[in-house]
Amino acid sequence: MVPPPLTSFDDRVNALLDQMSDEEKVGQMTQITINLILKDPSKPWNEIEVDPDKLRIAIQDYKIGSILNVAETGAYALSQWQDIIGKIQDEAKKSRLSIPVLYGIDSIHGANFIRNAVLFPQATGLAATFNTTLAREIGKISAHQTRAAGIPWSFHPQVDIGRQKLWPRLWETYGEDVKLVKDMGRAYMEGMQGDDITSRENVAACLKHYVGYGLPLSGQDRTPAWISDRHMLEYFLPPFEESVRAGVVSVMINSGEVNGIPGHANYHLLTEILKETYQFHGFTVSDWEDIIRLNTRDQTADTPKEAVRQSVMAGVDMSMVPFDYSFYDLTLECVQDGSIPRSRLDDAVRRILRVKYALGLFDGNNAWPDSSALDTFSKPEYDATNLQAARQAITLLKNDNNLLPLSIDRISEINKLVITGPTANTLTSLNGGWSYTWQGTDETIYPRNLTNKTILESFRTRLGTSNIDYYAGSSFNTLFNIDNLLNAVEQASYILVCLGEQAYTETPGNINDLTLDEAQLQLVEEIKKRTSVPIITVLAEGRPRIIRRIVDLSSAIVMMYLPGMEGGQALVDVLFGDYNPSGRLPITYPKYNHHLSTYDYKWTEVKGGNTIDVEFEFGHGLSYTTFSYSDLNVPSKINWNDQIIITLNVRNTGLRQGDHTILLYVSDLYRTITPPNKELKGYQKLSFEPNEQKQIQFTLDRHDLSFIGIDLTRQTEPGLFTITVGNLSANFTLVGEDQPGS
Amino acid sequence: MVPPPLTSFDDRVNALLDQMSDEEKVGQMTQITINLILKDPSKPWNEIEVDPDKLRIAIQDYKIGSILNVAETGAYALSQWQDIIGKIQDEAKKSRLSIPVLYGIDSIHGANFIRNAVLFPQATGLAATFNTTLAREIGKISAHQTRAAGIPWSFHPQVDIGRQKLWPRLWETYGEDVKLVKDMGRAYMEGMQGDDITSRENVAACLKHYVGYGLPLSGQDRTPAWISDRHMLEYFLPPFEESVRAGVVSVMINSGEVNGIPGHANYHLLTEILKETYQFHGFTVSDWEDIIRLNTRDQTADTPKEAVRQSVMAGVDMSMVPFDYSFYDLTLECVQDGSIPRSRLDDAVRRILRVKYALGLFDGNNAWPDSSALDTFSKPEYDATNLQAARQAITLLKNDNNLLPLSIDRISEINKLVITGPTANTLTSLNGGWSYTWQGTDETIYPRNLTNKTILESFRTRLGTSNIDYYAGSSFNTLFNIDNLLNAVEQASYILVCLGEQAYTETPGNINDLTLDEAQLQLVEEIKKRTSVPIITVLAEGRPRIIRRIVDLSSAIVMMYLPGMEGGQALVDVLFGDYNPSGRLPITYPKYNHHLSTYDYKWTEVKGGNTIDVEFEFGHGLSYTTFSYSDLNVPSKINWNDQIIITLNVRNTGLRQGDHTILLYVSDLYRTITPPNKELKGYQKLSFEPNEQKQIQFTLDRHDLSFIGIDLTRQTEPGLFTITVGNLSANFTLVGEDQPGS
Repeated sequence: MVPPPLTSFDDRVNALLDQMSDEEKVGQMTQITINLILKDPSKPWNEIEVDPDKLRIAIQDYKIGSILNVAETGAYALSQWQDIIGKIQDEAKKSRLSIPVLYGIDSIHGANFIRNAVLFPQATGLAATFNTTLAREIGKISAHQTRAAGIPWSFHPQVDIGRQKLWPRLWETYGEDVKLVKDMGRAYMEGMQGDDITSRENVAACLKHYVGYGLPLSGQDRTPAWISDRHMLEYFLPPFEESVRAGVVSVMINSGEVNGIPGHANYHLLTEILKETYQFHGFTVSDWEDIIRLNTRDQTADTPKEAVRQSVMAGVDMSMVPFDYSFYDLTLECVQDGSIPRSRLDDAVRRILRVKYALGLFDGNNAWPDSSALDTFSKPEYDATNLQAARQAITLLKNDNNLLPLSIDRISEINKLVITGPTANTLTSLNGGWSYTWQGTDETIYPRNLTNKTILESFRTRLGTSNIDYYAGSSFNTLFNIDNLLNAVEQASYILVCLGEQAYTETPGNINDLTLDEAQLQLVEEIKKRTSVPIITVLAEGRPRIIRRIVDLSSAIVMMYLPGMEGGQALVDVLFGDYNPSGRLPITYPKYNHHLSTYDYKWTEVKGGNTIDVEFEFGHGLSYTTFSYSDLNVPSKINWNDQIIITLNVRNTGLRQGDHTILLYVSDLYRTITPPNKELKGYQKLSFEPNEQKQIQFTLDRHDLSFIGIDLTRQTEPGLFTITVGNLSANFTLVGEDQPGS
Repeated sequence: MVPPPLTSFDDRVNALLDQMSDEEKVGQMTQITINLILKDPSKPWNEIEVDPDKLRIAIQDYKIGSILNVAETGAYALSQWQDIIGKIQDEAKKSRLSIPVLYGIDSIHGANFIRNAVLFPQATGLAATFNTTLAREIGKISAHQTRAAGIPWSFHPQVDIGRQKLWPRLWETYGEDVKLVKDMGRAYMEGMQGDDITSRENVAACLKHYVGYGLPLSGQDRTPAWISDRHMLEYFLPPFEESVRAGVVSVMINSGEVNGIPGHANYHLLTEILKETYQFHGFTVSDWEDIIRLNTRDQTADTPKEAVRQSVMAGVDMSMVPFDYSFYDLTLECVQDGSIPRSRLDDAVRRILRVKYALGLFDGNNAWPDSSALDTFSKPEYDATNLQAARQAITLLKNDNNLLPLSIDRISEINKLVITGPTANTLTSLNGGWSYTWQGTDETIYPRNLTNKTILESFRTRLGTSNIDYYAGSSFNTLFNIDNLLNAVEQASYILVCLGEQAYTETPGNINDLTLDEAQLQLVEEIKKRTSVPIITVLAEGRPRIIRRIVDLSSAIVMMYLPGMEGGQALVDVLFGDYNPSGRLPITYPKYNHHLSTYDYKWTEVKGGNTIDVEFEFGHGLSYTTFSYSDLNVPSKINWNDQIIITLNVRNTGLRQGDHTILLYVSDLYRTITPPNKELKGYQKLSFEPNEQKQIQFTLDRHDLSFIGIDLTRQTEPGLFTITVGNLSANFTLVGEDQPGS
């Protein structure tokens, strides 16, 4: 069941629209930051207060339709949120037409701007689970905890494709594969919106960032992307189309430019593709300050007013202004001098009002927070789901001689577990950006409770403090004096070196080089010089930082991504074998700065003298058990309209239970657009008891074999294809519509 | 004066075409490598012999129209070439229609496959001169020396844009700026073709590689390029259009793919743009083996025959097969079964025959080598031009406290000039790829004579052996035992550390990281640890390898690019002040692996938290004198059809004569496609005596302010522009056609 179509609210919307003045309409298109209605946004989070005069100005004078965000000092408690949202809706109620305000928030990995909300693995980690059921469930929990605050709209999910490894928002993507991004994004979105967005359990989702944001040519955030029409249709648009057709109600716009056209000025993409071709009836919202930036940064508009005109006429419906009322004033000017026709104004407002009606904000007390949510906010099963996600995300990249799982018997007060490294004792590196604050770097405001534990704290809980020796070792970029550490490692049972990145997002996360910081590489090298005690390298990082120098020095390597608040516990569970790791890399892990390929490379990249040399392949991920594949079966001839039924047997041939994702790739051997060597077309995550065998079935059809042709339409060509699953492969011939046998 | 249009030969061409069989036509489209007509291609260069039987098979049985290349053992002497070409044309004369063979060769930096030809600076160095007169002159000399061998066709110039710094053919480009590439390419091409390509002084040029070859996304040669239509029109196509409209007679095709379409299968680019829009009447030639590779590598063709059909129908006229006669057989099959219509066959052959007629190959003895060329081949003025080019290319990147020019009085047998580093005593690193062999790495076959000297040999000639202490120091990637070097540097007068790259081109030149090899960086670091004697770092390299670690350690840094055979002498001249350096970087020199910007970056790259941090900017280049700019004058208002006359005064304010290139940039402040921060729109290289002042004038018009708009047409928008020359800038307003004042 899906929510009713947005157009089903048009009678009520149009009736309201008829009563609205230009000012009221323009106000609906205006979104401001909460700072503008606070007494003093610089106060600590728990002293934040709404200023009634400022709120009155926003609602009554400027008639604004939307507010967003938390101030820079970070996340508020649930009760604070309920108070804030209540006051906003009270004020809105007093306005001439009593149109409720639509509050929006970045709930990126859980309701991360509400204290004590569950903070889940960030998107790349979630993608590593290859578990869309989990993504849907997490979307649902995030929605519930967000709406508990009275906030009915979250700027999520992000369905940008993660094919630029330098990009400081790579970790906010579901990785490099189009199908995985499409599936995970849709599942998460459906979890958020549920089948009834009027429900206090659900929120309106906001797909972002439409479109092409994720591939800045330089790797620096919000710098120019070079994306041809074919690449746009092949890689970047499909996840948006998928979730738009599945009913997402809002879309946030790409801050960057594609081929010289800023996202916010791109009529073709916003209006012709999104609204017309994909039949999107919800509304688009600008990203932070991005309309004025058409004048001040992109320089496609020679005045602020022209910036407003350009973006609204391109198809932007709501402006995240957010620091002043300039958009209100300038849009009004444009409407009154005709440079924005009233038909376009009405269209934008209609789209926004549809979503407010769809959310039920006009009905009963729906716009106000539900005070009973204070009691139902936290649930043990939410933490359990989070732990499950963090466990399933963790990806075992290397495990020489089955060093892992660790033998707990070898760890003692004499032969301690030595823990070191910059990510060992911090929550920020487990959570990344969008955690309590925008950058997520303020460790002091992270709530500390039973489930919010660092890696070190989690190991201490499990092993007791006396069995662990901890030395910081290095910061992210500076090697400390490690004499004591080097003495300690000599009689360690194991050495756990926790490396990675400090939290970041957007431009503050820009880097010049993908290599992991020198100090961290040296930390491992120095330890290895001193001892042959095995080193387990743990990576908590948003991007696959290059670790070539320390791969051979590490007996085991564990990728955590940004695993959220249960990351420490999940790592303990995996390292001691309480959970058998099952994550698989959703991004190719590079070995060199300039060999940044993806798994679906073209043949030219490995023929004619070229080679691809990566550290770990897309889909790589070890287990403590082993799986064998057999009996791959696919009909050798497929008629044009047939389903393609593929079966195989998978057996757990080891001694432990294990979750396992089966990945199915298709290779089109010849086609008019150069074929990639393979493409992921199916995956299934299943649990296997020791010696258990399951028959797996995948069903494809010719649409799964399609690509964007020379004429830029999606098409399938008959011919020879190869199916590859693990070490098995089989060919089939797709017979064309007009060919014999069809 | 330009050569007569190719279509003026159509009466003769069509008359011949009427007599030709399918086989003879297909033969004309077939180009083989010389290996196929040699007795044993693996023999040393001076033992190479034509096999009359193989030659007869090629000409009489397969009726082939073109032969290319030297065998792997390298360049032949002029007399050998005359003998080989003479035999080929003798055999062609005996064929039914006596159609002469068109021999083609890669004369890339001079006639580099003819022994004792002048080897000039490679293209990037030539671009650093900003001297199109010199480019034209070098094109002319290269043509003369090539044609002296009886070879009337050279695969040059390369007008790919050098915007991918990893690309192993970057040094074959004229750099990153569109105008510079356009101008240098055209000048060189006009030098080659002259105003009469029947002349024994001239050759047919071949623009390459059409189009988009130079921007592989990964940086590895011949891997996929992502280039939007706008970027293609803005950056990549203009140099081709420029030289096509100026009369170039052949075009070689991009080996790579752009947006999933291989260059050799791209009907839109080859036929619609090049032949129809640009009205190109010459012929296109495939690159090495690239037609069959549509089947074996790109996989757009499921059989070799389909590869042939696809490429011919896309617009390829001649196939550089080159190792067999498969193209001949398969094309014939396609023609006979109708999959290639005879109209297309005739079109391809007509284009090839036009060029053969235009070259005069059908007339008199023109197709045969001119034996008198043996005497006129070498001329002192050719070497003088080469030295002038190498001197003008050399770019002084750093010169702390005016360390340079060196004081010759400080160098003595006691305080020697210490020379070290892997490029100090090799000709290969001065010449790069396409030097005697494809890769140019075989030092043993480089002719040694008075002008072919390494850096070390050049300094020894100037200073005498006893004033110089030479230690190899390191290879390109391995630090040697440098104890003796370190002892020697302590009492050196100066230390010259010669770094850079071994010769390469194409895929063998692929790299994983742009940083200069560790051993070379360490060489400088180790020397610096030992002594404060100033270090002069010399770079002989095809790509701007990252040298961040040694920039501060070097008192002076001199960029030589790949300067050719006079490079050593030119360096001596510059370091001792006999020539005052005047080169300017045609490529932005990066500081980090992932800050690979170009000078014409968009504003987003330096606003909103982003920064650009490069080692040396495009156009950077120091002199031993100083220049001051004043009195920049540009009318504040320019009407739509007006010329834009810009004047300024430039004065040599130092005590030495100096050549100096004035660079003029234009910034379009606002436009509908995001404007770059600036674009080079004019340059002039002039000589200034001490204290001499010159008034400089640049003339632009609105077409110089144009860009590729939203609708993909070239357009100019009225509004505010800024002119920047050195430290001066001035604004003007372009008044639109319909605006008051126009």
